[in-house]
Amino acid sequence: MRQSNLFTKTTKNIPKNETSINAQLLIKAGFIHKEMAGVYSFLPLGLKVLNKINNIIREEMNVIGGQEVYLTVLQDKNIWKKTDRWDDKVVDNWFKTKLKNDTELGLGFTHEEPLTAIVRNHVSSYKDLPKYIYQIQTKFRNEIRSKSGIMRCREFLMKDLYSFSRTQEEHNKFYEKSKVAYLKIYKRCGLGDNTYETFASGGVFSKYSHEFQTLTKTGEDTIYVDEKRKIAVNKEVFNDEVLENLGLNKGELKEERAVEVGNIFTLGTKYSELLGLKFTDEKGNKKTVIMGSYGIGPSRVMGTIIELNNDSKGMLWPKEVSPFNVHLVLLNSDEEVVKKVGEEFYNTLQKNGIEVLYDDRQDKSPGEKLADSDLIGIFQRVIISKKTVEKNRFEHKFRNQKDFKLLAEKELLNLIK
Amino acid sequence: MRQSNLFTKTTKNIPKNETSINAQLLIKAGFIHKEMAGVYSFLPLGLKVLNKINNIIREEMNVIGGQEVYLTVLQDKNIWKKTDRWDDKVVDNWFKTKLKNDTELGLGFTHEEPLTAIVRNHVSSYKDLPKYIYQIQTKFRNEIRSKSGIMRCREFLMKDLYSFSRTQEEHNKFYEKSKVAYLKIYKRCGLGDNTYETFASGGVFSKYSHEFQTLTKTGEDTIYVDEKRKIAVNKEVFNDEVLENLGLNKGELKEERAVEVGNIFTLGTKYSELLGLKFTDEKGNKKTVIMGSYGIGPSRVMGTIIELNNDSKGMLWPKEVSPFNVHLVLLNSDEEVVKKVGEEFYNTLQKNGIEVLYDDRQDKSPGEKLADSDLIGIFQRVIISKKTVEKNRFEHKFRNQKDFKLLAEKELLNLIK
Repeated sequence: MRQSNLFTKTTKNIPKNETSINAQLLIKAGFIHKEMAGVYSFLPLGLKVLNKINNIIREEMNVIGGQEVYLTVLQDKNIWKKTDRWDDKVVDNWFKTKLKNDTELGLGFTHEEPLTAIVRNHVSSYKDLPKYIYQIQTKFRNEIRSKSGIMRCREFLMKDLYSFSRTQEEHNKFYEKSKVAYLKIYKRCGLGDNTYETFASGGVFSKYSHEFQTLTKTGEDTIYVDEKRKIAVNKEVFNDEVLENLGLNKGELKEERAVEVGNIFTLGTKYSELLGLKFTDEKGNKKTVIMGSYGIGPSRVMGTIIELNNDSKGMLWPKEVSPFNVHLVLLNSDEEVVKKVGEEFYNTLQKNGIEVLYDDRQDKSPGEKLADSDLIGIFQRVIISKKTVEKNRFEHKFRNQKDFKLLAEKELLNLIK
Repeated sequence: MRQSNLFTKTTKNIPKNETSINAQLLIKAGFIHKEMAGVYSFLPLGLKVLNKINNIIREEMNVIGGQEVYLTVLQDKNIWKKTDRWDDKVVDNWFKTKLKNDTELGLGFTHEEPLTAIVRNHVSSYKDLPKYIYQIQTKFRNEIRSKSGIMRCREFLMKDLYSFSRTQEEHNKFYEKSKVAYLKIYKRCGLGDNTYETFASGGVFSKYSHEFQTLTKTGEDTIYVDEKRKIAVNKEVFNDEVLENLGLNKGELKEERAVEVGNIFTLGTKYSELLGLKFTDEKGNKKTVIMGSYGIGPSRVMGTIIELNNDSKGMLWPKEVSPFNVHLVLLNSDEEVVKKVGEEFYNTLQKNGIEVLYDDRQDKSPGEKLADSDLIGIFQRVIISKKTVEKNRFEHKFRNQKDFKLLAEKELLNLIK
């Protein structure tokens, strides 16, 4: 894409009440726009990152057998009354609205109830199970405060998968599989080294749930990390009994601030029981389906990536989630010969299927272009200037490294791919 | 995908109040689930079709220079007050909700206001224009009644593009370009032959707007069609003056029922004036940006495709929007040799990058499998049975044709691709 055509510009104006690093940088770089606290629009560069994260998640959910659906925002109260989650005294972050005839509706903050009701229409026999169903869909939560940029929003995208199993054993097997998939997602998003499988409080059906916590100074949670075993314990369940239970040694644990980037939960028969989701087993007996839920917020992951990967100049996108693979920056673009090399190399990159943002802007100084490039933070940058053209070379630099290289076209293409 | 793994089943149970053909068939085939009137969830097969339509639209919007964004559902009333579109007496189909502190919010029914406000942050000079910005995003409209299945919903996906131009001439040029893109979208979705560019009422800034109307008996609109010139006039502007204006001869026009599958509209400076979207021209003068809006509802297109393409057995998906390219149906799957051929050919299709739904179900009779296949309506079907295996052939049939062919593997693969 030509940067001269991109409608967004970088800016120094950020809303005064925007205190989070992630939203400050994303607004400065033109990735997002703040509509109100906790409600952000995604502009072209931001949407590109979000879609890359979505696709990584989608691929890993498909690998473990997930099938994708797209449920609705508007929620019928009758189904939520069955599980006692309609009343604002029980669930305190509903957004509610009304039809013209005054029928109250909710805006979905999660989807256990409607999906369980759908699955009930399609599952009746043990032959129909297990099933793993997910969506990447917009959720609404009426938070009293919303101060963490795109990491805790009132309106946000969420991947929620729900598992429907016949036995506890079948459930446990998928639950473990989902952990592997989650860790792979964080690795691909560049969060692998800092993300810990973390024991958190469970429910009636399971002693623990599991969170995935990424270490960041700005994190909302406190966790205790065992670096060797690459696991952690959330403060909420941090006590001697739990440590003994997990075979952890208090002395070897490090207290850290972290942000929850995903969580998985054994639901047992809580929803299936109340909503009548049963199946007939091999022997003809009616049994209740065992469920699990598996959540991850793509925009929260995006915010976490930025909280971890920024410097005084701007953002540093890891390869797989960078809005483009390469930022091609043309300096001295008023010189015909430089422009010609730029246009040709832009075409070459496109022919090779390499996603490129091409800074072909005529009215910006080299200083402005390089500052914008650092702020936007594309994974790698190629500079074409009078100097590089004279040497018949290209200047290449990874955003997260200090040194650049002068390379001939062929070497450069090999490096970029 | 293996049909034995697909969680949805076909059904004969449809909600009693579901009178539209499109929703009846889509529910029977397990493509969608009705949450309430005008609110439908998309299940795996339905979501596949919807995504194909979205991608066709996305491709054609990119061709004419569109850049994609993703704005929010939750709307700040202050910006809508500036254009006098907040009051329920002015816009009668708002859904509204509230923050915990009682601040009223709206659920977006369109996005002229918020996008214009965003663009104002990024556009200041004639060098920044023209720009074409679109999204594929969920809209909410509080309709009193909602009886047309997925064709008129309270919650629905919409592609809305907005153009921002410097001069009327520049606007007109893009407006004409958008018509070409729209007609290409309908052609690719299999609606080309039945869809007419239709003159409809304009506004302050343009005598006409343009709709794209697809002829269907169940359509909500009445239009007058000139088949030779492939244009039509909406009843709302059908009068002698307009006919003379357009050079149309009343005697050559045919009255038809049709459904509006898209519309494009010259907004002029209506929103840019009220929201202060101005630019400095070459001479240093402040001017107001000229806008246009260009809408198309992917789920409405999906519903229209079904209204036009169905028979007593089910749906008939056109090639580019079929949930899968091929339905591979294994009959006599209890015979080992038949099963072996089925598995091998399923692998062959996947290796060739052909999307296939593979009916490998063991507990269904040939009659049930063929009935399900006709109902689901994938573009083409391949049957493998004891009979075909004995002949070392495959039975191939297009859903919209009566005759089948017995083909060897190589011929079949060439036909399918």
